[in-house]
Amino acid sequence: MNGTMGIAFPLKEALAARAASLEACLDTLIPPVEGGEARLVEAMRYAVLGGGKRLRGFLVMEVASLFGADGPGATRAGASAEMLHAYSLVHDDLPAMDDDDLRRGQPSTHKKFDEATAILAGDALQTLAFGVLVDPATHPDPAARIALVAALAEASGMAGMVGGQMIDMEGEGRALPLPEVERLHALKTGRLIRYSAEAGAILGGAAPGTRAAIAAYGRDLGAAFQVADDVLDATESAEQLGKTAGKDAEAGKSTFVALMGIDGARAEAERLAARATEALSGFGREADGLRALARYVVERRN
Amino acid sequence: MNGTMGIAFPLKEALAARAASLEACLDTLIPPVEGGEARLVEAMRYAVLGGGKRLRGFLVMEVASLFGADGPGATRAGASAEMLHAYSLVHDDLPAMDDDDLRRGQPSTHKKFDEATAILAGDALQTLAFGVLVDPATHPDPAARIALVAALAEASGMAGMVGGQMIDMEGEGRALPLPEVERLHALKTGRLIRYSAEAGAILGGAAPGTRAAIAAYGRDLGAAFQVADDVLDATESAEQLGKTAGKDAEAGKSTFVALMGIDGARAEAERLAARATEALSGFGREADGLRALARYVVERRN
Repeated sequence: MNGTMGIAFPLKEALAARAASLEACLDTLIPPVEGGEARLVEAMRYAVLGGGKRLRGFLVMEVASLFGADGPGATRAGASAEMLHAYSLVHDDLPAMDDDDLRRGQPSTHKKFDEATAILAGDALQTLAFGVLVDPATHPDPAARIALVAALAEASGMAGMVGGQMIDMEGEGRALPLPEVERLHALKTGRLIRYSAEAGAILGGAAPGTRAAIAAYGRDLGAAFQVADDVLDATESAEQLGKTAGKDAEAGKSTFVALMGIDGARAEAERLAARATEALSGFGREADGLRALARYVVERRN
Repeated sequence: MNGTMGIAFPLKEALAARAASLEACLDTLIPPVEGGEARLVEAMRYAVLGGGKRLRGFLVMEVASLFGADGPGATRAGASAEMLHAYSLVHDDLPAMDDDDLRRGQPSTHKKFDEATAILAGDALQTLAFGVLVDPATHPDPAARIALVAALAEASGMAGMVGGQMIDMEGEGRALPLPEVERLHALKTGRLIRYSAEAGAILGGAAPGTRAAIAAYGRDLGAAFQVADDVLDATESAEQLGKTAGKDAEAGKSTFVALMGIDGARAEAERLAARATEALSGFGREADGLRALARYVVERRN
């Protein structure tokens, strides 16, 4: 499975174990409430609990483990990254945005609840992502918490994820050149994946050079992930993906597959995954989980 | 004008001066950009620049001035509070929410741009509000920045502003009893106003007891503001208000005026403003601006 790299890391088991920790943490951080706001909290729980690969949360925890820092604080920071990701999915699925009724094989949040509740649930998930990071339970050192909040704000705002989503909306129906498609995805999905890796380095108190290597790994991993996602979208069925397939191409969005062909996109994903792995050359066996993850993102089927 | 309290504070001039500082700061914090995300940044600027009373930003700066801390950092924190407020207005105005085409006499953001852009602009304004707070330019002490982020997250999330907005949506078409209407507004608008006052105390390094007094002032000021807002909504024209009048009553929302009558609501606003002023009894003339503000919120005509 991971033979090309000579790595025999039990990634599926590690992903499942970390996902279970993240799920339990998220469940604790968003307890159901009574009163008029019960519906909001229910929608937040619906959006963030119950599945997904937990790639971002896994990254936070797995990178933190390189520095012996994958305790409860790393799980909280991982849960925060998952909240941020969930908020972006809830808003992206809205009728005014990508108008997607299906997410992970289930009705998207605005279909399960309603649009107003989905907008508010996304809003509150973003707020809570920052609220969790700033809590002393996430890291005892205020400077580390400050660094986490600053990095998340930069990764997820106008110069990051939301900026990328805007470029994506603006590009609908137009043929974007490859560099613009690369930039779009580097912002829309790449920045939060890179942040997740960096968050682990921040939690571990990594030196600047080490943090930069981890950031490079995260950047290339995110890029590989997105190119592979385009390949999956073009080749797998909706049933397999648990979401509407071929949607981007149908919406007239420029995809890596459209620009490079299936084989070209597959090769590009491989190249990016290999470069991500190279960024880890300063680490020993303790980084095998991250190396296995780089393989996984280009080999996955959903 | 402020005769009832024996205060002769030039509030209009002070509001205008602080508003000008806030506007300049916001303009700097959200510079126009090139590229596919230009439209996002344009919408963010449209939503947050160009008017409004700047009540929240003023509060941050005016409370900070009690402690001699109303420098550029306080202006940034005030601008952050205005970003958070602007994001909430952009999302509240959306068709799926209050469906309001008019804001401060101008087309609301989704009318001027489109729904997708408005959703994203609100999202990115929230992110930036946190990003600004965490920057060393806002306060040199990481502990103060942490306290600001924690307080804003608590005030604006599921247990604060967004929770209140959900209660508001859930209450449409139903007659809510007075305690529930009070709680709704304490969350929906009150928490961010209270936060704004507390943020000034945090910037000034106020002792816990002093911060609690400022928080009590902010809480009662926010409550007075909302009751007075209901009175204005019932008595003033849309032209005067710069937004659609009578909208809450029309949407079947329970208002203070519906529950207490015009005269009862006016008396309640007065009572709350007086209590807000009492919370400032530990301060001398340096708090006259805050006392004048408490008069202003119940005497204003828009």
